Amino acid sequence: MTNLKPSDKALVPFVSVDHMMKLIHHIGVEPMLAGLAEYIEADFRRWELFDKTPRVASHSEKGVIELMPTSDGDVYGFKYVNGHPSNTAEGLQTVTAFGLLADVSNGYPVLLTEMTMLTALRTAATSALVARLLAPKGSHVMAMIGNGAQSEFQGLAMKAICGVDEIRLYDIDRAATAKCAANLAGQGLKVVECTSAEEAMLGAQIITTCTADKQYATILSDNMVGAGVHINAIGGDCPGKTELAPAILHRAGIFVEYPEQTRIEGEIQQLEPDHPVTEIWQVLTGQAQGRTDEKQITLFDSVGFAIEDFSALRYVRDQIGETGLFHPLDLLADPDDPRDLFGMLQRARG
Amino acid sequence: MTNLKPSDKALVPFVSVDHMMKLIHHIGVEPMLAGLAEYIEADFRRWELFDKTPRVASHSEKGVIELMPTSDGDVYGFKYVNGHPSNTAEGLQTVTAFGLLADVSNGYPVLLTEMTMLTALRTAATSALVARLLAPKGSHVMAMIGNGAQSEFQGLAMKAICGVDEIRLYDIDRAATAKCAANLAGQGLKVVECTSAEEAMLGAQIITTCTADKQYATILSDNMVGAGVHINAIGGDCPGKTELAPAILHRAGIFVEYPEQTRIEGEIQQLEPDHPVTEIWQVLTGQAQGRTDEKQITLFDSVGFAIEDFSALRYVRDQIGETGLFHPLDLLADPDDPRDLFGMLQRARG
Repeated sequence: MTNLKPSDKALVPFVSVDHMMKLIHHIGVEPMLAGLAEYIEADFRRWELFDKTPRVASHSEKGVIELMPTSDGDVYGFKYVNGHPSNTAEGLQTVTAFGLLADVSNGYPVLLTEMTMLTALRTAATSALVARLLAPKGSHVMAMIGNGAQSEFQGLAMKAICGVDEIRLYDIDRAATAKCAANLAGQGLKVVECTSAEEAMLGAQIITTCTADKQYATILSDNMVGAGVHINAIGGDCPGKTELAPAILHRAGIFVEYPEQTRIEGEIQQLEPDHPVTEIWQVLTGQAQGRTDEKQITLFDSVGFAIEDFSALRYVRDQIGETGLFHPLDLLADPDDPRDLFGMLQRARG
Repeated sequence: MTNLKPSDKALVPFVSVDHMMKLIHHIGVEPMLAGLAEYIEADFRRWELFDKTPRVASHSEKGVIELMPTSDGDVYGFKYVNGHPSNTAEGLQTVTAFGLLADVSNGYPVLLTEMTMLTALRTAATSALVARLLAPKGSHVMAMIGNGAQSEFQGLAMKAICGVDEIRLYDIDRAATAKCAANLAGQGLKVVECTSAEEAMLGAQIITTCTADKQYATILSDNMVGAGVHINAIGGDCPGKTELAPAILHRAGIFVEYPEQTRIEGEIQQLEPDHPVTEIWQVLTGQAQGRTDEKQITLFDSVGFAIEDFSALRYVRDQIGETGLFHPLDLLADPDDPRDLFGMLQRARG
């Protein structure tokens, strides 16, 4: 009667960092970015179904730890993510993350996975999905301002999803630019290393800002931004951290994931709380207009929303069955008789 | 230069259900209950330090999934827990849980552990800690009404921490009572199987109610409860789920973990929102009075609070180093250069 092996019900598939990297290579970086964008688009199109709990943040002097839960009524997901700008100096990641999916009908987890890699991919997939929706027709050159951990993923997502074929890099740290250029070599993109943001923006229809300053910064000033571009603003993503001069915001059509969150965390924290913004999901479903004309400046004020993580978790869950790239994790106590937890404990005595 | 093995920084100690059961047997059930009670008491004594975010609940028709985060400023912890009463009929646990500790200074997780077993222990440890504080001097007989998964842990915690030597069992399901009695045989408690709640309460100074009805139930009616007892009410722990007749509440001194949460989830959801209650931590620190006299009915309206899970996680974290009862889990992507996540991915290509 002794059953020392955990039952199937007790086991939760776990995707380690190693397995995630193998999964990415198995699928291919660009196909995976495109697949993630499909899942994110599908979930944005059924936006109103979702339980949109605000993220639960625990702030300290050094940074923040957040839980980002959501549910579509059948599946529940959450992401654990930290943000600690000073980590880089200690050789640690500024942001690490993991996530979980569970079955709403019984509360049992069905997937636990690393999400540091996965978040990098879903962020880039979201940017590219939105750029495809809003950028001027025929956009093919992107300025990439800020060449840190997110930059290569942005470049490849814009290539795979929007048809970008040239990426122009700038970072205040030349080593970061060199790193990004080296990583993107041979990936089918024309890569140009630039020595100023202005140079990076020459001929670019898409301008992506993704810098790490935790302060009100002005990565783009008003006179730098001409008509008819799409700005993909990623780095301004928490209170006190912005990248764009307010004047740019006043000239742009502003598109956001979830206004309640973006008004606190995004570029628009610099604006009045009733400044008009358009929700991406409404553009996708045709309930709101996207770009109005070729001269409009469109701005995606991206902060990252729980539904994007949910989509990414769903995508991974759908991929791992076939590939076997997971470990079964003995996470849940599952006694033969649910009322007999103590009996299970007693029977486990070696 | 290829480094396929995860670095130490990437690895999070993971305590599986199997390891948790081994840890409990290694330490011993009663010593572990006593150890948990010590950690919980220590954290209750520094109650004001804690970030007491309310739990974040996602409700559905079938049940609830909750995240319970807290932090003492140095360490952050959260528990994932579900509650699905209909699970038992499908051979699943009503409640499953896992938890995590992280370092506030850098946001890196330092422990991931099953918490189904651990929650059973911390709930019993909390009950016994409070009973030691509030029950009449010389209490040694406990009535245990509801003989499900929590019942044996309650019995052993009351024995280890309060000196209970006799436990009187009653459940509407006789099989549950027989299961509990069999599990407690040879554990040093006199175990009496009873055929009614009244019989179970004969001579008991401590009355524990822990039933699973998800409805306003009356496990104890007013005339059943005499003077000078301590009621440890565990089963009433969510909106709409209570066990005690309101008249008992009006006769009792009521003690709670965190009033903001207990007024929604506990027995006192049946009372006016300003009905006086005493916080356990204030009794422990001497800021509030416990039992006033030997004839008082004291009631611990227990719903389970995040700080108890935090204490339990701290306890496990402190124990596993020595015993080695954990797996290192490759949960965090940790590139040599934090800005070079993509390079790490490229180098992992087989």
